[in-house]
Amino acid sequence: MPHTSNRGNEMPESPIRKLVPYAEIANNKGRVVYHLNIGQPDIETPQVAIDALRIIDRKVIEYSHSAGGIGYRTGLAEYYNKLNFNVTTDNILVTTGGSEALLFAFYSCMNEGDEVIIPEPFYANYNGFSKTAGVKVVPVTSNIDNGFALPPIADFEKLITPKTKAILICNPGNPTGYLYSKEELETLRDIVKKHDLYLISDEVYREFCYDGKTHHSVFNLTGIENNSIVIDSVSKRYSMCGARIGAFLTKNKELLAVALKYAQARLSPPTMGQIAGEAALNTPQSYFDNVINEYVNRRDVLIEGLNSIEGVKCPNPGGAFYAVAELPVDNAEKFCQWLLEEFEYNNQTVMLAPAAGFYATKGLGEKEVRLAYVLNVDSLKKAIECLRHALNVYEGSTIKNKVLV
Amino acid sequence: MPHTSNRGNEMPESPIRKLVPYAEIANNKGRVVYHLNIGQPDIETPQVAIDALRIIDRKVIEYSHSAGGIGYRTGLAEYYNKLNFNVTTDNILVTTGGSEALLFAFYSCMNEGDEVIIPEPFYANYNGFSKTAGVKVVPVTSNIDNGFALPPIADFEKLITPKTKAILICNPGNPTGYLYSKEELETLRDIVKKHDLYLISDEVYREFCYDGKTHHSVFNLTGIENNSIVIDSVSKRYSMCGARIGAFLTKNKELLAVALKYAQARLSPPTMGQIAGEAALNTPQSYFDNVINEYVNRRDVLIEGLNSIEGVKCPNPGGAFYAVAELPVDNAEKFCQWLLEEFEYNNQTVMLAPAAGFYATKGLGEKEVRLAYVLNVDSLKKAIECLRHALNVYEGSTIKNKVLV
Repeated sequence: MPHTSNRGNEMPESPIRKLVPYAEIANNKGRVVYHLNIGQPDIETPQVAIDALRIIDRKVIEYSHSAGGIGYRTGLAEYYNKLNFNVTTDNILVTTGGSEALLFAFYSCMNEGDEVIIPEPFYANYNGFSKTAGVKVVPVTSNIDNGFALPPIADFEKLITPKTKAILICNPGNPTGYLYSKEELETLRDIVKKHDLYLISDEVYREFCYDGKTHHSVFNLTGIENNSIVIDSVSKRYSMCGARIGAFLTKNKELLAVALKYAQARLSPPTMGQIAGEAALNTPQSYFDNVINEYVNRRDVLIEGLNSIEGVKCPNPGGAFYAVAELPVDNAEKFCQWLLEEFEYNNQTVMLAPAAGFYATKGLGEKEVRLAYVLNVDSLKKAIECLRHALNVYEGSTIKNKVLV
Repeated sequence: MPHTSNRGNEMPESPIRKLVPYAEIANNKGRVVYHLNIGQPDIETPQVAIDALRIIDRKVIEYSHSAGGIGYRTGLAEYYNKLNFNVTTDNILVTTGGSEALLFAFYSCMNEGDEVIIPEPFYANYNGFSKTAGVKVVPVTSNIDNGFALPPIADFEKLITPKTKAILICNPGNPTGYLYSKEELETLRDIVKKHDLYLISDEVYREFCYDGKTHHSVFNLTGIENNSIVIDSVSKRYSMCGARIGAFLTKNKELLAVALKYAQARLSPPTMGQIAGEAALNTPQSYFDNVINEYVNRRDVLIEGLNSIEGVKCPNPGGAFYAVAELPVDNAEKFCQWLLEEFEYNNQTVMLAPAAGFYATKGLGEKEVRLAYVLNVDSLKKAIECLRHALNVYEGSTIKNKVLV
């Protein structure tokens, strides 16, 4: 029997999905599991997008252009230009989700063995994409105590080597929900300009900014037009993760030409996803107003609830729909598994994502979890009560004043 | 300005698509271009697949399972078992087209620098996927004079090194249309068994076998269950290339577990494509009977027509909808470009794919082209007449008895 590849063996398992077998155990016991572990929103897809599929009248579901259909790219350029991106259709490659856009960025910017600096904790699949592309992730650590703000410029600079080719950020961030300020982005601009690096900005949560804060894109910065890449996706914006439609944006023509070759090799992004994505561009503002209102309510319930539990620490995120919380436990992964395998409170339990998998530095995040507030307020309240009870009965809990329940 | 990656710069351009700018020139001159260059069939997608999209009643277009929805995989397993594949849903990963299935195979079976033996000419994007995965293509040359049959076993064996991890075939073949016999597959089985290699079989044209010939899959061979991988796709079978739905199949559990990690990193294959793909499993046999009848008529018209031109040599393909022909020209790429840039016959011209890009050995295929018979018989006849005239007036033509037209 031939061996599987070393690189395949070394591919990290998704920390978000690796507890799935334990969730099945809980399901098999008939327990209600509140899924706060995965970024699959329960928010409805805009009706305009679904309607566009329902009236498909094509005879042949053909490939699109490898860069995406020109009609869709034209609509996308308009959408981006309302955000002052100053792009044309030639700056846009439509991709199979943000995932593929990231892979295109890694392949096009970096050789095997090159390094990308990423503030940690970061979206765990960045590890998988880096491994796939043979690129080394160099983490710069952000801290729960200042809400996961951008680490100081000196922390970045001491990590830059001749192998460093790019800095990758997620803004607003998955898993922290942190929204970078204009000043933080300007700091990043100065670093990439000084060291001639790429700045890859994953902005798939762009629409989800709260408390009157505004999103600042790397495409709103001047002077680094040839350094900047935006990773985008319709998955979260329109709650249509299954469409698998994203985008790779750059004003660097040489870079786009290289990325296009990767796009041509895989022929075309999904045609039906593009039909839905193009229609979704006409989603009324009221949809976003409602969604953001809903997420703010959920966030408030979740963050307040979490911080009301003794020993739990959770900063208030400015965007996206995630939060990272520190729990009073010996080990978050062990706790998360126990929640599914053994715990129940009124026949309910909670599924969380252990945060260690969102760090590249070994040993960090071992008491932290990521929570996605993709459930309604009522379910969130129940999930918090579950968690409160769990932390009181869990053997490895470090809560001092346990109340036996 | 930061540099693009070396590997990106070395990515081959698609030989199928690189003449597109010249086709635009022809279009701009108002010329009718017969596109025999690309495998985008004009055949209608089965109505059951389109209908399934038209009745979508989901509120949220969600991710599916990373391995593909269980409903679709159950249907797929049934489909494969009718072909005596003897698989369960656990042997199947639904992928984003056959392209992604090939990438998963390369990453999971091979490390950077490992070698894969591929009979040439081969589907040109195998070069792109190999480059992406850092794998080296070692070609074993097949010959137009015996219709591109499997090269002798000795040719394979002399190429096997400690770096060789896999043999990749396409059956029936793109670009040659060659359909491997049971005996040829058994030869391959003996090689992979002896040297403990993977046998990756791209079978996306499985349904397109002509003249009463039967398709033999590597999954019909016994004794190499842990070595065999089937690459599949709905693109050609149901003429829905834009769905971007393929499959990676293996009975090797360890290998499937590794491939699943790559699948998890990119979250899920397209949901709408899976809906269409699942519905397409109910396509009536009459659809395939009609399609195959149509392709046989086209093939007969094309191959007869081509061989009726002085100096043109084109073996009769047993499957798929491609043929490779040798033309009486100095250089096929130059000729193909000239067809688009300069030639016209009654305001028509032909777009062909120069075959050199389908070979890994430099210098081979320089007088050959790939033709996809994805146009109706009437258009094919017109295209052949164009070609006949073109070969009479082209400066680099090596036809002896030119008839001035």
